[in-house]
Amino acid sequence: MAKYKIWVVAAATLLLLAGCTSLPGTSSSSSSKATKKLQTTGKVTDSMYEGVIDNGQYKTSQTRGLTTQQSNTSFDVKSLESGLLKLSKEQFPTSKYVFQEGQSLKTAQAQKWLARKSKTNTEGLNPEDNGQKDPNKRNPIYLQQILEQDYLGEDGSMKGMSIGLGMNQVDYYTKEQYGATFETKISKAMMTQQGKQMANKVLSRMRQKKGLSDTIIVIGLYKQAPKDSLVGGTFFAYGVSKKGSTTIDSWHELNQENQVLPVVNDEKAINQDDATAFNSFKTQVETFFPNLSGVTAQTHYEEGVLAGMNITVNTQFYSETEIMSFTQYIATAADKYLPRNIPLDISITSAEGMQAYVGRASGSKGFTTHVFGSY
Amino acid sequence: MAKYKIWVVAAATLLLLAGCTSLPGTSSSSSSKATKKLQTTGKVTDSMYEGVIDNGQYKTSQTRGLTTQQSNTSFDVKSLESGLLKLSKEQFPTSKYVFQEGQSLKTAQAQKWLARKSKTNTEGLNPEDNGQKDPNKRNPIYLQQILEQDYLGEDGSMKGMSIGLGMNQVDYYTKEQYGATFETKISKAMMTQQGKQMANKVLSRMRQKKGLSDTIIVIGLYKQAPKDSLVGGTFFAYGVSKKGSTTIDSWHELNQENQVLPVVNDEKAINQDDATAFNSFKTQVETFFPNLSGVTAQTHYEEGVLAGMNITVNTQFYSETEIMSFTQYIATAADKYLPRNIPLDISITSAEGMQAYVGRASGSKGFTTHVFGSY
Repeated sequence: MAKYKIWVVAAATLLLLAGCTSLPGTSSSSSSKATKKLQTTGKVTDSMYEGVIDNGQYKTSQTRGLTTQQSNTSFDVKSLESGLLKLSKEQFPTSKYVFQEGQSLKTAQAQKWLARKSKTNTEGLNPEDNGQKDPNKRNPIYLQQILEQDYLGEDGSMKGMSIGLGMNQVDYYTKEQYGATFETKISKAMMTQQGKQMANKVLSRMRQKKGLSDTIIVIGLYKQAPKDSLVGGTFFAYGVSKKGSTTIDSWHELNQENQVLPVVNDEKAINQDDATAFNSFKTQVETFFPNLSGVTAQTHYEEGVLAGMNITVNTQFYSETEIMSFTQYIATAADKYLPRNIPLDISITSAEGMQAYVGRASGSKGFTTHVFGSY
Repeated sequence: MAKYKIWVVAAATLLLLAGCTSLPGTSSSSSSKATKKLQTTGKVTDSMYEGVIDNGQYKTSQTRGLTTQQSNTSFDVKSLESGLLKLSKEQFPTSKYVFQEGQSLKTAQAQKWLARKSKTNTEGLNPEDNGQKDPNKRNPIYLQQILEQDYLGEDGSMKGMSIGLGMNQVDYYTKEQYGATFETKISKAMMTQQGKQMANKVLSRMRQKKGLSDTIIVIGLYKQAPKDSLVGGTFFAYGVSKKGSTTIDSWHELNQENQVLPVVNDEKAINQDDATAFNSFKTQVETFFPNLSGVTAQTHYEEGVLAGMNITVNTQFYSETEIMSFTQYIATAADKYLPRNIPLDISITSAEGMQAYVGRASGSKGFTTHVFGSY
């Protein structure tokens, strides 16, 4: 059986949407919710959670940084975190709850849950190894990541929890140590079925933990991106368990997709108009400075509609004044060519690091720009 | 004689001060000053110049990217550019002038000017090689960089020019090819005297070029930072030539200093209160996440008063939610500990690149924050 290091990203806080957010100049922030001496990070906008601080230190998850042998892309790690945070906001308004990295699920236990079920690991959520090596005969690893996020009341008491289950659509495996990589494809139907079953198991187990018998628990099912993807996966379903229930009775289906632009090979654009708009922008920007190394975008769709775009412009080294001109030009071109009414996040980077960024926040028409200067 | 590649950063545009600037949502920007079909980059704030575009391409300097064998630090390149831009704004208001990278001084000529004077190079501004190898007997290289910036009227005509001369306070040299590096130290008095003499020579030569006989020309004298510096140098004098004069009759002295915090070895802080404030901030932030790789700052002083601070926080990889908490915490700590009423620029970076930034614009009390997300 493959040896597993395990990715458990029980982490998370404060969803910062694209765009600039302002912290009022007052120093009201630290401990502003400290009705019972709960120390928090302070808050920069109402759309963000405050995070818990314990004795001046950030309360990190015990399980951060673990990885399976089939490691997640960093895109998957980030998308699972920020997607779960977004789902959580609907249940746990940022005005009433404080964020805490997942503390209930401990490292050792998470490792057991993510591993295969076996005689020595009865807690394993993934199926037993049936000894088969054939892609279609073996039992694949369905569950790849598990993520816990905690939502506290202003007095520091545990009020809510969100759990994300990262489900594989492809399980990558080797037949022997250091051998070639094979793939077991997992159908959408099977991934969904397995995810919902595991969600109920996880829920029953969490209900038995101290202080969680009656907590509101949100469980989200997340589809991992393929291994070579340059964008993370998406959530495809979630359910809310109230009043101590041990099953999710009602699942909400989510239709989300991510795609990298420009599309390569014979891939079809999710939305041709968006792809065309991006290509116009790309062409315009590449003409401006002839030696750009590349302009690519991550796009995010919800229910078939473009919901956001992250663009990276790679430059060779240019002088600071050129970067300044370039930044203004990019803001102008983005305004002219890119789809309106969506959040935009454009990073201008060189081998020396990020040089500038141009952003448009959700719901905003104006752009914000920043050139990273040096004295 | 040493073989010279030459740094000529005849470049520049649009000073973007720290902080977020907003582009109105309209697409009024491109060519908005095109009274005579002059195409420009568009403008994001009134404090910035628009830059010239030629046939859809940015008009780069012919001389960008050249370097002397004794290469400049990238800090020196940036500081010379942005410092000259700042001086220029006083003479050429951004509301009336359009920026263009320097076009009058061509590559080959700039190389000649920066090289030593010799029988084959009568144009050399640096002194003849007197054959001496001793640090105190040889003629050092006084002039290290030359930078031209052009300021056009709205009709595209040449209205003003700024020239920055980068003067060495230390000339690094070798006695033989690939040999050890020696240093000739240059006194402040000698650097100033040489700079002012060279400024007059440059001015007379520029006046002979086509279209420049009557243009307002600003000449700034810049002190190069030492080779191992983690911050750039500063301008120490400037003069303005009007009505076709071929000498700068009146020099304005500037008292500017840059320093990296925390100070190391036995270096003395320029201002102890600022250094102490920074150390409090650093300690606070390092406590929050125990595994930070480092917190450093570039400080900039004008006439003895702190005028700005760029802070870099290096982190190991953290989850996106941790970065979000961290960012809010940094804004809170910056507000609490760092000096007020100065522009602040705080970058939070990991090996994967910039993760987030926190900024406070000149004259602003509020902070802007941005976490770089991923789908």
